[in-house]
Amino acid sequence: MADRYTGPAVRERFVAEGATVIADIDGHRSADGPSGVVAAAGRVDVLVVNLIARWRPTSATETTDDAWLATFDTLVHPTMRFVRAALPQMIERRSGKIIVVTSAAPLRTMPGGDAYTAARAAQNAYVRNVGAEVARHGVQINAIAQAFVESVDAFQRDTWDSEAMQRQLRQVPAGRIAHAWEQAELVAFLASSGSDFICGQVLPYSGGWAT
Amino acid sequence: MADRYTGPAVRERFVAEGATVIADIDGHRSADGPSGVVAAAGRVDVLVVNLIARWRPTSATETTDDAWLATFDTLVHPTMRFVRAALPQMIERRSGKIIVVTSAAPLRTMPGGDAYTAARAAQNAYVRNVGAEVARHGVQINAIAQAFVESVDAFQRDTWDSEAMQRQLRQVPAGRIAHAWEQAELVAFLASSGSDFICGQVLPYSGGWAT
Amino acid sequence: MADRYTGPAVRERFVAEGATVIADIDGHRSADGPSGVVAAAGRVDVLVVNLIARWRPTSATETTDDAWLATFDTLVHPTMRFVRAALPQMIERRSGKIIVVTSAAPLRTMPGGDAYTAARAAQNAYVRNVGAEVARHGVQINAIAQAFVESVDAFQRDTWDSEAMQRQLRQVPAGRIAHAWEQAELVAFLASSGSDFICGQVLPYSGGWAT
Amino acid sequence: MADRYTGPAVRERFVAEGATVIADIDGHRSADGPSGVVAAAGRVDVLVVNLIARWRPTSATETTDDAWLATFDTLVHPTMRFVRAALPQMIERRSGKIIVVTSAAPLRTMPGGDAYTAARAAQNAYVRNVGAEVARHGVQINAIAQAFVESVDAFQRDTWDSEAMQRQLRQVPAGRIAHAWEQAELVAFLASSGSDFICGQVLPYSGGWAT
Repeated sequence: MADRYTGPAVRERFVAEGATVIADIDGHRSADGPSGVVAAAGRVDVLVVNLIARWRPTSATETTDDAWLATFDTLVHPTMRFVRAALPQMIERRSGKIIVVTSAAPLRTMPGGDAYTAARAAQNAYVRNVGAEVARHGVQINAIAQAFVESVDAFQRDTWDSEAMQRQLRQVPAGRIAHAWEQAELVAFLASSGSDFICGQVLPYSGGWAT
Repeated sequence: MADRYTGPAVRERFVAEGATVIADIDGHRSADGPSGVVAAAGRVDVLVVNLIARWRPTSATETTDDAWLATFDTLVHPTMRFVRAALPQMIERRSGKIIVVTSAAPLRTMPGGDAYTAARAAQNAYVRNVGAEVARHGVQINAIAQAFVESVDAFQRDTWDSEAMQRQLRQVPAGRIAHAWEQAELVAFLASSGSDFICGQVLPYSGGWAT
Repeated sequence: MADRYTGPAVRERFVAEGATVIADIDGHRSADGPSGVVAAAGRVDVLVVNLIARWRPTSATETTDDAWLATFDTLVHPTMRFVRAALPQMIERRSGKIIVVTSAAPLRTMPGGDAYTAARAAQNAYVRNVGAEVARHGVQINAIAQAFVESVDAFQRDTWDSEAMQRQLRQVPAGRIAHAWEQAELVAFLASSGSDFICGQVLPYSGGWAT
Repeated sequence: MADRYTGPAVRERFVAEGATVIADIDGHRSADGPSGVVAAAGRVDVLVVNLIARWRPTSATETTDDAWLATFDTLVHPTMRFVRAALPQMIERRSGKIIVVTSAAPLRTMPGGDAYTAARAAQNAYVRNVGAEVARHGVQINAIAQAFVESVDAFQRDTWDSEAMQRQLRQVPAGRIAHAWEQAELVAFLASSGSDFICGQVLPYSGGWAT
């Protein structure tokens, strides 16, 4: 998880624990970006793929090809490339954890978010499918389908009191936004051996919004 | 549905009923392909989007960028373009039916089908999201998430007796493959006014394999 | 479907088509009620089980044992008994359709509806499981998980304009309630041979509320 | 979790951490059983409800009323009673964790397990619904939908090598059974404050069998 997205504290925690943490908006669109990052990291025991996309609500009739394709270029294709790059060493060692941070949006619906929900659903399905494939090799890959988690780009503390946010929060059973450090606890659990029997799972993390 | 995929009988039925039926493997990758088809069709009351992809089982470590991207180019992006092209006239008339034939694979998992399940999941999520958006305009868009349906390319009658097929069929509660004309009954129901309250739905059609 | 629930028109249609239609609130709690009804009907080609429960919103701390158990007595146990009574003749003839009308509520959540959603979920799971079991015998059992369907007891036309209803309808993508005759079209499709490849399926019917 | 089910080690761990752990097969059918247990426990910060049912595969036509009702009496109704008994003090303190151990079976299907899957689905739906209700009070209730977890009653180590078990395990992506202590790690995570944003969630725990 990169600084912009989850904050230095979270990044530090995971790096301190030895995780290779990757996230940004534009940096990994090229096909060799992900493989280069993984190669540079050397041994990767835990890989956290946390790719984010900027999007603005668009009606189905106004979606542009550029915006649509950019969403898949930013979220979907690099996810596959990061996983593909990290898997061989993990399979060889019969040990490894991959955690892909995705979204709970495709578990419900999201007005104006056609490209976004489609791309997030593709990530979720990919994790389920690869997760089933590599579990026998001792490698676990899971997704955190998040919503309403505080980050540098979204749901910042200074917007919690806005009327728009309060209206949104009425949809969230927990009645609040999650802190980044809370989400880090879930990532830490999924990175630990205590979660070895969880594989190919898409775990909603949304304060009860999507269950 | 094109001849290759579902057979002349099905195509004839739908064309006779006034549906615009579109399906092929390679013909709609360009951005203006879908809009051109819809423009040429004039008034479109029912649009059946039935895009198919050739794929061969590939392990997660061996997926190539070319095969991965081709799957999205063939299934996902044209789906959005066909829907985007057909929606304005339907919204204006406050009436229209779009049926996207997708796959039940992402509802379970499919060994070696990472790209395929990811792309099919993107289609399913897109239908759900657009379906929720346009329902208020009197337009219904739904998906048929099929598996084990006979076609010119897959599950042909002459392979039903093969040992591999029999092994697969043990996973299917119905114990058999569906005929193309059976699926056409579901399409016909979804194209009728009797289904007006069904919108944004992904309907599994798999003999009980995915429920 | 009984008069109270869906109106005489729907009942007449199905009876005219030869369906055995069963529904009421209190009439089938005894263990021999369902078997008696089925025995009295003789040959049953299509069985529609449409059981309803009166409930009022109750917080989890205030649920009474009586109300909780009554919900299961009314919805869950008779469903099993009707299906158990009708299956043998259907399996012997290798032909038969059972349609259980349930609710979309457990696919989302329902404030104050703990007993109701738990019981409806039990029905849905029962249909999925039995559906997978009997499909090989040529018998199809499916559920319609409905919400916002007009009936004598709920969502009557004269309440459509109420403010409470309008607020609820903002959650429904279709922006309206379904007429009973519309739902009857779905029942009719599921009762036809055109749906033979659909089995053990729980079909949401909710105007896009649950997808 | 009681000795019979998960072994003394797990029980000791949770009791040492202050959890009230309840589980057995027959002990909680009476309406005052659960409330008595909770009352006797005094302050309950963490409640683990782990009820199990003996069942043998039964076809849908042979299910007896006795076996059906016993399954609901053993699994479903006591779950509601335990939760109802523990909630008031948790809501008052605005803090508390309830973890209900259920089954992944209703997420797929289970031959001959009609009563079992229906009852487990009722538990899962109950957790989702109550979870959404009480989240605003600072109380989290979640379910672990398990399958293939070793216990005193099921999947014991001495049966791992049996041919029947090996056949079953081919359905499990992880290719193995979980140890009870592994599941305890997930329970521990759900009992910690790090999971506060997870509420009303049904978490599959099945080695990838149900995802």
